[in-house]
Amino acid sequence: MGDGEFEYRFKVPLHDIDAAGIMFFGHLFRHAHDAYEAFMGAIGFPLDQVIREGSWRLPLVHAEADYRLPLRHGDKTTVRLSPSKVGHSSFVLDYRFIGDGGQLSASARTVHAQMAADGAAAVPLAEPLWAALSARLVDHGRDQSSL
Amino acid sequence: MGDGEFEYRFKVPLHDIDAAGIMFFGHLFRHAHDAYEAFMGAIGFPLDQVIREGSWRLPLVHAEADYRLPLRHGDKTTVRLSPSKVGHSSFVLDYRFIGDGGQLSASARTVHAQMAADGAAAVPLAEPLWAALSARLVDHGRDQSSL
Amino acid sequence: MGDGEFEYRFKVPLHDIDAAGIMFFGHLFRHAHDAYEAFMGAIGFPLDQVIREGSWRLPLVHAEADYRLPLRHGDKTTVRLSPSKVGHSSFVLDYRFIGDGGQLSASARTVHAQMAADGAAAVPLAEPLWAALSARLVDHGRDQSSL
Amino acid sequence: MGDGEFEYRFKVPLHDIDAAGIMFFGHLFRHAHDAYEAFMGAIGFPLDQVIREGSWRLPLVHAEADYRLPLRHGDKTTVRLSPSKVGHSSFVLDYRFIGDGGQLSASARTVHAQMAADGAAAVPLAEPLWAALSARLVDHGRDQSSL
Repeated sequence: MGDGEFEYRFKVPLHDIDAAGIMFFGHLFRHAHDAYEAFMGAIGFPLDQVIREGSWRLPLVHAEADYRLPLRHGDKTTVRLSPSKVGHSSFVLDYRFIGDGGQLSASARTVHAQMAADGAAAVPLAEPLWAALSARLVDHGRDQSSL
Repeated sequence: MGDGEFEYRFKVPLHDIDAAGIMFFGHLFRHAHDAYEAFMGAIGFPLDQVIREGSWRLPLVHAEADYRLPLRHGDKTTVRLSPSKVGHSSFVLDYRFIGDGGQLSASARTVHAQMAADGAAAVPLAEPLWAALSARLVDHGRDQSSL
Repeated sequence: MGDGEFEYRFKVPLHDIDAAGIMFFGHLFRHAHDAYEAFMGAIGFPLDQVIREGSWRLPLVHAEADYRLPLRHGDKTTVRLSPSKVGHSSFVLDYRFIGDGGQLSASARTVHAQMAADGAAAVPLAEPLWAALSARLVDHGRDQSSL
Repeated sequence: MGDGEFEYRFKVPLHDIDAAGIMFFGHLFRHAHDAYEAFMGAIGFPLDQVIREGSWRLPLVHAEADYRLPLRHGDKTTVRLSPSKVGHSSFVLDYRFIGDGGQLSASARTVHAQMAADGAAAVPLAEPLWAALSARLVDHGRDQSSL
């Protein structure tokens, strides 16, 4: 859903740069998660409340990133986040890190699985969360394939 | 107590360096805390157990550091940690960051207060903790002054 | 200068919380530095440019913080930053971390010294930097005391 | 090469735990990189020297991780690192995070490409680095496929 794509902005801070003079690759995931937190708040599921209420948990089971262009100190960056798959008990989020000139600097993906509060087993996504995520998909049909 | 001074070693990793080419000052506190965790384990109070048992908490109420020489990527560093004060409901830890050539690169200090499990009030240090910390002081007398 | 006090806002992210359930104390310095970067940009000295041009450096020589109230996941926080001293070759910045209800959660202080590009010696603050920082002081007189 | 597999140990520190009570997923990459730095030192290419000499660079072009079991505060963890592919101008490292009881907690992979010092183009892996990495492969044959 092009118009629904979520945007999160940041500027690469001094402390994200490493000894090689570019953003340390691991920090990309911190920014991706900050974008994810902002996104979850925007769609009605602020993570701090979700965690405090404790009814369910959404741990990451997979994360990956591709680095195309170095991110440097002071670079203004926009993270474009959208769900690419919403499954029975998990969902996939895609992130594109776009530089000030419109160039794609990096992309990332995280896979989240809904677990029961005791963490022992995957459970179906809560219906309101499933609906909110699906509304952000390009194709709104519930994906029944296993993730 | 020279012989009791606790030592913790680390090598400055690539990701601790910032855009100015030296260790980001805030990361010194991460290493100080890693040394503190190792120290607490060594004197019989591993923090993970203390936190899980939940009988008391030891939040930091103050932290400070002086930076004398830049820490650079790959620098082998020894943290020398010792309590400098053990009070009624709080204690002070001092840290010296020593480089490979024996030079003092930085020093730090943290002040910890024992709180009841609900965090609402400072409580006297648990007697075994007080004893273990005091045994590491140069002067073993219980300091009665307020911190 | 009350009207000139600089404000920087952030929301405590999930990854800043530690095993004790509150913001890890060391992360306060990361947020303080993010505020400092924003401040330096606002007064005309964006750190990324200053570092790239390489004419001078502003390493921290001291940092400290006092923690009054725990910062928790999701807490909306405002950092109020102001110079409290502008000396011959160094300056002091004070930070107050204010919660959503107006309460003071923490305060911090950083001391920065201007060094020659080779890092070998403290040098007088560049005049435009001195002027920009002094304009933010309550008392605009140049402080001649040693820091 | 079973006997050549590199091991790096760490204990999950307090500050790696997040608001959900487990290690923040992004920190796994910091530990992976610490293991990589130790590995590179062990095979004769300490990264701090490589970077200072500046003859070539090894930026990450891809990183990924699978999270199987939560890592908790105090967990003693061994990272087992080995190259899984050594190509013309890039190489792949695999990491397994093994808990104290021998369980696989997480796995990760990083892909590194050798770039000319100006970062403009991928260049063939330096011959000594190619040889050192290949000696750690199960199959020592040089992989000619593109990565």
